Amino acid sequence: MLEFYAGVPHLKSDRAFNGALARLARRTQNRSPLPFGGFSALFDLKRLKVRDPLLVATTDGVGTKLDLARLTGTHNTIGIDLVAMSVNDLITCGARPIFFLDYFAAGAFDRKRTLEVIRGIAKGCVEAGCSLVGGETAIMPGFYADSTYDLAGFAVGVVERSRAISGDRIQAGDSLLGLESSGFHSNGFSLVRKLFTEKELSGQTGRRFLKPTQIYVKPVLNLISKVRINGIAHITGGGFYDNLPRIVPKGLSVEIDRGTWPVDPLFREVAKRARSTEREMYHTFNMGIGMVLVLSKRVVRRAQHILKRFGISSWEIGAVVKGHGVTLK
Amino acid sequence: MLEFYAGVPHLKSDRAFNGALARLARRTQNRSPLPFGGFSALFDLKRLKVRDPLLVATTDGVGTKLDLARLTGTHNTIGIDLVAMSVNDLITCGARPIFFLDYFAAGAFDRKRTLEVIRGIAKGCVEAGCSLVGGETAIMPGFYADSTYDLAGFAVGVVERSRAISGDRIQAGDSLLGLESSGFHSNGFSLVRKLFTEKELSGQTGRRFLKPTQIYVKPVLNLISKVRINGIAHITGGGFYDNLPRIVPKGLSVEIDRGTWPVDPLFREVAKRARSTEREMYHTFNMGIGMVLVLSKRVVRRAQHILKRFGISSWEIGAVVKGHGVTLK
Repeated sequence: MLEFYAGVPHLKSDRAFNGALARLARRTQNRSPLPFGGFSALFDLKRLKVRDPLLVATTDGVGTKLDLARLTGTHNTIGIDLVAMSVNDLITCGARPIFFLDYFAAGAFDRKRTLEVIRGIAKGCVEAGCSLVGGETAIMPGFYADSTYDLAGFAVGVVERSRAISGDRIQAGDSLLGLESSGFHSNGFSLVRKLFTEKELSGQTGRRFLKPTQIYVKPVLNLISKVRINGIAHITGGGFYDNLPRIVPKGLSVEIDRGTWPVDPLFREVAKRARSTEREMYHTFNMGIGMVLVLSKRVVRRAQHILKRFGISSWEIGAVVKGHGVTLK
Repeated sequence: MLEFYAGVPHLKSDRAFNGALARLARRTQNRSPLPFGGFSALFDLKRLKVRDPLLVATTDGVGTKLDLARLTGTHNTIGIDLVAMSVNDLITCGARPIFFLDYFAAGAFDRKRTLEVIRGIAKGCVEAGCSLVGGETAIMPGFYADSTYDLAGFAVGVVERSRAISGDRIQAGDSLLGLESSGFHSNGFSLVRKLFTEKELSGQTGRRFLKPTQIYVKPVLNLISKVRINGIAHITGGGFYDNLPRIVPKGLSVEIDRGTWPVDPLFREVAKRARSTEREMYHTFNMGIGMVLVLSKRVVRRAQHILKRFGISSWEIGAVVKGHGVTLK
C-alpha cells in the first residue's frame, strides 16, 4: 500500500525515505485506497457513491516555475502548484478529484529536498481532497543537473454523468465570473526568467512570483452543488485567449471588461520590462484571474457570496456574446 | 476532445502539431472517451461493464534508456517502453488498462522528434488496449539540453473486485512461472551507460539495448481469465530481489533455479564489464524474465500453452517455500 515506486534500487531499499513518503501520503487518505497492490494503487469506486460515474483524468507539470524554487531555495510549495495545475483542470467539468500520482525526476538524490517537494504535494492533495496514492522517484544523472528536478502530476476525478459540465449550455448573455488568482500561478515563467536577474529572483521578488497556485476545488465544487454553472475555464498558459475558447460553443465569443478587477502590480512590472502589449500579456499570464465561470447573470451575486465564504474574491469580468474569439475592452 | 495540453502557448496554437497528436491518439480509442471536456479527458465507466470496479493507477518513466534513444537517433520506440512500464504494473493485480496519459518535457521544441516519441506511445497504447486520452508537452529551456527530453506515463485500469489479484492466495509449494523479457526492458541503463562507449551505444549494440519493453497485457489478461493465478510480479529496477517480495506474503520466500531459462548473452557481457556478481546482476536487471506469475504447480503447463499462443515463452523458474527473501540456486 502507498508504495512509491522508486526508480532506482537504492531508493526502493531506503526505508527512511519510503517511510517518510508513506507518512506524508497517509495524511491525504480521506477515502482510503485498498491495503493491497504492491505495484499499483487501488481505489474503491463504490465508496464514492456516484451512481453513473464518468472518470476524468488530467496531467500537468509546473514548467520553469521550478527555477524560482531553486533560486529562492524554497522547495516545500512547488508541490502545491503541481497538484493545483491538475485538479483545477479536473474541476472544469465538475469532477471531484479522487486521487493523485506524481513523477519526480532529478539528477542526484537529495532526500531532504525530495521530501520537501513531496510534502508540498501532500499539502496540495489535502487541500484538493484527493488521496496521494503513489509516485515515481527517478534519479537520472546526466539528464538533470544535480540541483535540478522536474515534476509531473496526474489526477483522476469522478463526476456523476448528469452533473458533468461541458460548456454546451453556455449562451449569449451569460456572465463571466472571474475568480482571483493567487498571483502568477504556474505559467509564464520562461518569460519571467528572462526579465528579472537571478539576484532579484533569489530574493523578495522571487518569493512573490513563487506564491503557490490557488487550488479552487473546495469553493468551486461547493458552488456548483448550489448554483447552475454553464462552463468553467482554467486560465493557464495562453491566458484568456487560449483558454476561454476551449469551453465556449461555436458561434459565441467572450468580451472581457478590463478594469473590473484589481491586477497585481507585479504583472504591470513584467509588462513594462517585456515591453509587452496588453494582448501579449493576456496571452501569457492569468492577469489576476485564475478561473472563469460562465453562468446566468441572475445568479452572479449568489455565486460571489458562496465563493467569498471560501475566501475567494470574484468579479463579473465580462459576458458571452455572439461572434467568435476573445475581445478585451 | 483528445486535447493535448501543450505547456506553452505556441504549441497550443500549433494546429499541425495538435492535429497530428489527435490523429495518433484517435487510433488508440477503442473504448471511446466522451467528446467533451476541453481541459480534461473523460471516460465512461459504464461501457466497461464491470459490476464492482476497483480503479488501479500506476506511473513510471523510462529512466536513462532515453539516452539510448538519443545515441541511436531512434525515437519511435521509447514510447512503447513508457506505456509498457505502467501497464505491466497495472496487470499485476489483474486490472485491464483503460487509459493512458503522457508527460513529455524537452529543452527545445522539435516537432518531428516529439511526434516520433508520441507515435511510439500510441503504438504501445494500441498493444495494451488502452486509450491515449491526453498528455502534456512542456518546453523547458535550461532544464533540459536541447537534444534531451524526459517522459513520464500514467495509466489507469479497472478490475472487478472479486477478480483482483493481491498475492494473498500464494502458498508454499506454488510454482513460479517466468515470462521471457524482450531484453533489458527499461531498467539498469545508468549502469549500462558507464560500461559501454558512446560509439558502441550509437550502433548495433545500442540498438540491441533499445529493444522495446514487452507489453504483457494481452497474454496475461487472457491467461488470468482461464487459469487461477495467485500473484504477479513485474520485474523492474531491483530485479528479482526487490520485486518478488512485493507480492509474497509474510513467512514465505521464493527459490529461483537459474539455468531453467536462456539468458541473452548481452546480460553476460554487462556482467563481465561491470565485474558484477550474480547477485548484483539479479538485483539490477531482469536477466531475461520480465514478469513472474505465481500459480499452482498443476496449472503450469496449461498456462505455458496459453502464453505461447501469444508468442510468449515461459519457464518454471522456481517455487515458493517457507522462509523469507529471495534465494538464487
